[in-house]
Amino acid sequence: MATFSQSGFWRGGNTLKVSMELFSKNRQRLCESLSSHPTLPSRALIILQGGMAETRNCTDHEPIFRQESFFHWCFGVIEPDFLGAIDVATGKSILFIPRLPESYVSWMGRIKEPNEFKTIYDVDFVYYTDEIENVLSHFQPTSVNDQQAQSKSITHQLPLLLVLHGLNTDSGNHCKQAHFNGIEKFHVDTTTLHPVISECRVIKTDLELEVLAYTNKISSEAHKFVMLHIKPGMYEYELEALFQYYCYRYGGMRHLSYTCICASGENSAVLHYGHAGAPNDRQLKDTDLCLFDMGGEYYCYASDITCSFPVSGHFTREQRIVYEAVLDANRHVMESVRPGVSWVDMHLLAERVQLQHLLKAGLLEGNINDMMKVRLCAIFMPHGLGHMIGIDTHDVAGYLDPTTRIQLPGLKSLRTNRNLKEGMCLTIEPGIYFNELLLNKAYSDPEQAKFLIKSELDKYLGMGGVRIEDNIVVTKDGCRLLTQVPRTCEEIEQWMKNKHEKLNVDDYKK
Amino acid sequence: MATFSQSGFWRGGNTLKVSMELFSKNRQRLCESLSSHPTLPSRALIILQGGMAETRNCTDHEPIFRQESFFHWCFGVIEPDFLGAIDVATGKSILFIPRLPESYVSWMGRIKEPNEFKTIYDVDFVYYTDEIENVLSHFQPTSVNDQQAQSKSITHQLPLLLVLHGLNTDSGNHCKQAHFNGIEKFHVDTTTLHPVISECRVIKTDLELEVLAYTNKISSEAHKFVMLHIKPGMYEYELEALFQYYCYRYGGMRHLSYTCICASGENSAVLHYGHAGAPNDRQLKDTDLCLFDMGGEYYCYASDITCSFPVSGHFTREQRIVYEAVLDANRHVMESVRPGVSWVDMHLLAERVQLQHLLKAGLLEGNINDMMKVRLCAIFMPHGLGHMIGIDTHDVAGYLDPTTRIQLPGLKSLRTNRNLKEGMCLTIEPGIYFNELLLNKAYSDPEQAKFLIKSELDKYLGMGGVRIEDNIVVTKDGCRLLTQVPRTCEEIEQWMKNKHEKLNVDDYKK
Ligand SMILES: [Mn+2]
Ligand SMILES: [Mn+2]
Repeated sequence: MATFSQSGFWRGGNTLKVSMELFSKNRQRLCESLSSHPTLPSRALIILQGGMAETRNCTDHEPIFRQESFFHWCFGVIEPDFLGAIDVATGKSILFIPRLPESYVSWMGRIKEPNEFKTIYDVDFVYYTDEIENVLSHFQPTSVNDQQAQSKSITHQLPLLLVLHGLNTDSGNHCKQAHFNGIEKFHVDTTTLHPVISECRVIKTDLELEVLAYTNKISSEAHKFVMLHIKPGMYEYELEALFQYYCYRYGGMRHLSYTCICASGENSAVLHYGHAGAPNDRQLKDTDLCLFDMGGEYYCYASDITCSFPVSGHFTREQRIVYEAVLDANRHVMESVRPGVSWVDMHLLAERVQLQHLLKAGLLEGNINDMMKVRLCAIFMPHGLGHMIGIDTHDVAGYLDPTTRIQLPGLKSLRTNRNLKEGMCLTIEPGIYFNELLLNKAYSDPEQAKFLIKSELDKYLGMGGVRIEDNIVVTKDGCRLLTQVPRTCEEIEQWMKNKHEKLNVDDYKK
Repeated sequence: MATFSQSGFWRGGNTLKVSMELFSKNRQRLCESLSSHPTLPSRALIILQGGMAETRNCTDHEPIFRQESFFHWCFGVIEPDFLGAIDVATGKSILFIPRLPESYVSWMGRIKEPNEFKTIYDVDFVYYTDEIENVLSHFQPTSVNDQQAQSKSITHQLPLLLVLHGLNTDSGNHCKQAHFNGIEKFHVDTTTLHPVISECRVIKTDLELEVLAYTNKISSEAHKFVMLHIKPGMYEYELEALFQYYCYRYGGMRHLSYTCICASGENSAVLHYGHAGAPNDRQLKDTDLCLFDMGGEYYCYASDITCSFPVSGHFTREQRIVYEAVLDANRHVMESVRPGVSWVDMHLLAERVQLQHLLKAGLLEGNINDMMKVRLCAIFMPHGLGHMIGIDTHDVAGYLDPTTRIQLPGLKSLRTNRNLKEGMCLTIEPGIYFNELLLNKAYSDPEQAKFLIKSELDKYLGMGGVRIEDNIVVTKDGCRLLTQVPRTCEEIEQWMKNKHEKLNVDDYKK
């Protein structure tokens, strides 16, 4: 790979240089957290399985490999089919690499020696995956810092293996445990590692924050690039193409964090529009509002940004009412975020601000507290206020206890119910959508219908919706905003004036 | 989706309109082929499982869905989680669609009724997947063309289910058999369908050829677009970004057919460069030769095109020698291709032409026939001459009998050893590469070394290699070329002169 030193990740040019220290720090944090675990024996090894190369169905088509997220967090390895181990007592790290056939040289490139990987990924040892049983059986951390650990490690008992097993509360899936031939000889602990490593991932180090700031910087630029290119008559996917192009060409981002949501008109009310069954294929009209939820990924760190703006570059009265309601909610939350604050409270704050705007604009009538009691805002914002973000777009450990998820409309869609801590990264993404089905259900529920002024709401149906999504990091006394796009109506209209000038892709990025 | 009629696939603007007739024709061909099968009972139903929505590891990250290839060939369905059935006797078709939860409306979009899918995909019946056991148990094709089939179908025996099971000779994988709750009640035949449907896929209809011609047209334009933008100092992946951008924005191609190989300098000698471990991250030099193997996919039909050209826009003497050797091999093959010709013979023809050029240029010495006997050309071209192409880049049924694969260098990498038939689509992709490891092995083998003039070959080591890959369809008396890019050195140099003019992406595509 293009490197700025013997080890480290870089995609050349102005792309970010990431030091392997990011991962050694992560491993160190993990070992420290595990060391304080009451029931852990002194001789314990973490075993993680990296992502494996896959083919599509029965064919030989290989999608571009993207590393499994826990493995990336520990090692930063870009290749498939590795395993990794970390000695909890000493922090010593081992990578196990696949033994490649000679034909690899013609088809895939030069075969790197174990020592090269040791340098590239800055780990203590590198062996082949077919040696793993033997290596782990006889593993003796040398030059150990901790004398006590060393004296214990020379007893000839097999180490306890800590493997990853646990629930992802966003997907409902459990992660796949590491496996290798001979693992059945060892004692394997499947419960200790997952909560501890997940909790480590929640708090971002300065080195991680640098990458997250970079992904936000490039993705913000790409959103601005898209705004400049938008014209009535274009198809939504053309803007997706422009976003992807910018992120990759100028940011070195080969992957996006998630499927682009390039919604216009009434599509904006579909929260995850853009999937294969609704593939960003509508043609833009001059009067449309767009909701573009797109983020680039760099070295497996995500960004997740939504910009809502009018195709024409000018907000109509109705568009402005809705936009400013959502922006006000976004900014109220941003001002309230600090360590100790409950994310559920932030969600309710956003709802309250949005309801106040809709009331003032004459779309609703009645008392805000009464509206809150019947979960009225969930008609307009059926999703949660935001989620943790990191190596996964919906990052791990949103629920320490999944049974504490609140089962009320809107709140049940929250991806976390935690109290905030310094170093957490989150999205703040309030929204207001006019979804005909949800509104019709509400009209037929007397408890909700009494607040709704249908004649006014009907005027907004074609608008779809607005979401304003920023990425932040919780600081000691508030939060820091990572996203840098035009946000007020005035900023957006000002920025979009540039689009009438002749645009050259190469000129835009200097 | 953007449609040009009630059914049919279209991505708007100048993108190709594809009629659902493509798939009804395919189903008809399949039923005709199966009907002549000697041991098939009159009441047989083909059951195919569509691709399923997947998430990455344990997370909720969903890669953009791309349909499973056999299912696409039969039904053209763009959504995941369908099943399909075809009554062999009558050709009647059924789609089984997933029953979606009410929350789908907010998150994914309007839920389409069975009747809408019936219209969109122009099939005879649509049911939910949870009804499949019941529907198949009682399936009575109405308005049957074949009286005999009808009279047999009213016997109340369960139909025989033909499911897909067989080897993909490129991947070595077997396809996953269709499964649904209750399938164990039926008689299931796992051997009949795979060879028959694979053989149907080999011969392309005019409707399929139209799509393949379109993928080649757009991908050819995108290659030309890339050539115009290339500059020393750029990174290889920037050209990948440009290619992808062009294909998607102007061709409506959301997927590429395979991972882009954007190789420059010595990377060009690595046949499948560009994967995650070698991710197109080298910086281009003015003196480099590039080998860009990239193809876009439209509605699951592939293209696979390689252009080799100098960054500077001017071939050096050595680059021209190698390039013209490969082009001459490509054109000799193209002129020789016709029904009945053996693909193995075509491979050998390409080898012979390339050896003649290398001999004439003073890189080799000796007798060509003797060189052929020791497989000398496989040092320079370790891959096969080309492969069938269609819905898969490496399309199915390359080997009717995998045991007939020739195990000699070069020839063992052929993805097909068949005699050509009208309607087959193939790539013609000879190449010459200077791979240090392969050359060093040859120098130490006296049988090969005697032909090699090391002092001359050493001059070519940094060049990497050249591949010239075109897509063709075999016609009644020859072949038709689908790829439309500058091919001779003169055409390339002429085209690349344009790059010195100021380039605007929007201006380029009118
Ligand atoms: Mn988000
Ligand atoms: Mn090919």
